[in-house]
Amino acid sequence: MRHADYDVVVLGCGPAGLSAAVNATIRNKKVLVIGGDPCSPPMHKAQKIDNYLGLPATSGAELLKRFMDHAQAMDIEIVNGKVDLINDTGAGYQLLLQDEFINSKTIIIATGVPYKSTLPREEELLGKGLGYCATCDGPLYRDKTVMLISHNEEGENEADFMVQICRNVYYVPLYKKVGTMDARVKVLQERPREIVGENEVTGVRMTNDQVIPVDGLFILGGETSPSRLVPGLEMEDRHIKVNRKQETNLHGVLAAGDCTGKPYQVAKSIGEGQVAGLQASLLASQARP
Amino acid sequence: MRHADYDVVVLGCGPAGLSAAVNATIRNKKVLVIGGDPCSPPMHKAQKIDNYLGLPATSGAELLKRFMDHAQAMDIEIVNGKVDLINDTGAGYQLLLQDEFINSKTIIIATGVPYKSTLPREEELLGKGLGYCATCDGPLYRDKTVMLISHNEEGENEADFMVQICRNVYYVPLYKKVGTMDARVKVLQERPREIVGENEVTGVRMTNDQVIPVDGLFILGGETSPSRLVPGLEMEDRHIKVNRKQETNLHGVLAAGDCTGKPYQVAKSIGEGQVAGLQASLLASQARP
Repeated sequence: MRHADYDVVVLGCGPAGLSAAVNATIRNKKVLVIGGDPCSPPMHKAQKIDNYLGLPATSGAELLKRFMDHAQAMDIEIVNGKVDLINDTGAGYQLLLQDEFINSKTIIIATGVPYKSTLPREEELLGKGLGYCATCDGPLYRDKTVMLISHNEEGENEADFMVQICRNVYYVPLYKKVGTMDARVKVLQERPREIVGENEVTGVRMTNDQVIPVDGLFILGGETSPSRLVPGLEMEDRHIKVNRKQETNLHGVLAAGDCTGKPYQVAKSIGEGQVAGLQASLLASQARP
Repeated sequence: MRHADYDVVVLGCGPAGLSAAVNATIRNKKVLVIGGDPCSPPMHKAQKIDNYLGLPATSGAELLKRFMDHAQAMDIEIVNGKVDLINDTGAGYQLLLQDEFINSKTIIIATGVPYKSTLPREEELLGKGLGYCATCDGPLYRDKTVMLISHNEEGENEADFMVQICRNVYYVPLYKKVGTMDARVKVLQERPREIVGENEVTGVRMTNDQVIPVDGLFILGGETSPSRLVPGLEMEDRHIKVNRKQETNLHGVLAAGDCTGKPYQVAKSIGEGQVAGLQASLLASQARP
């Protein structure tokens, strides 16, 4: 259990996240970076990057290693993981990382290329029959029919849980090698195409055009939209809306790198990370208005 | 005499300017960089820069050399000089560099830390008795009294010229080792403090509080404000106002680096230079609206 309170928590360990962390550390802030592995999947695959000034003709993986070396040489705390929710506590923010809570005065979102939803209209129907955590919302669907669409095998546990309380549970795996579940779970081979229902979910149209009527729909293991991670965060065209100080519409929440918009480029991310790191340091040392 | 037409002309060869040039060159644009020597005086003096990700603990001069090496390895055309005026030709921009005209579809201003005026109220009184080129506006002051305030010895030629047509010419050198001028030029030892006159220049108050009445005032060899360089350019708090694509209020004129605002930092400049270079490349390949 981590108990420390941070000045700056950075989500993402790609160029923007590490640049933010380095700059906040230089300002003597207590910084935690939470990232995936590898840190920036698209950059990791880049064969040659030629436009990061001062380090020409370097592979993406080599540049990432240099960036990580720079951060580690400064003893920056970097953990592997995925934050599930961020709450505004009034005085700052509380993050849920796996099963521990972390407090921070400021948050820098540097989670990379924008979130792709699994199905159209997700944002619109969230909370109206659509959810992302079956075990959390399960009780709402007692004796009803639900569908679970899952990107990975972790959804199987949720299906086993739901089938105990629901009348019907459809399970749509978006991955191969599906494991064994409770025999009552109806595993479908068709893929989902769109959500059916005007103001709330009433069904799911599959790729064979069949509509399966459901009371509830859960999409599991997909990417997390920043606006779902931080309720109330303002987006613009699938990107996080920021001003020239990299501030979002929420006080103390900043964003940098690909998640704020194109061009998706290393130098742009590094520059925005720097501005975000310095601005977060400033905000962390001020009383919150 | 340079005759080529460019896609992108970059003013300034510091981090922002070179990053812009590298990125536009990668987009196959014809690029010219016009810069001073050294390229970024403030960075040149920095003993150690620790927050440019991937190249920790590097001196400013060493980083600048790496940046220049990167640009030169790409055969980018870089000339030493100072642009005096930029005109909108309708189809693009025409720049006056010493005695030659250069045409470019787009301009990226990356001239560094903002312009400091020599005296207060310069912007307000420009064209109302205040000018920056005595030989250009000289005829307006035939048989009148003018003062020339000069930052360097080049003002002496202008004083010699003006004294042929004006009744009185005061010369205020802001430098040491003043040369020999026409005996009629009145060289003052006092320094100027402020411009006197409500809606037009009527005199200059010196540091000894004496007011010298003048019809015209010229300030020579000082820094050039970006808004004087490009007429109509919108400023904000002494910085060039840009959007998140680094565009100014003028189509095809972009800006990057310290001239667009704080923090005055290398990574921020490199990132903005990249965005400006890519956006200018896009604009240069489109018809102008």
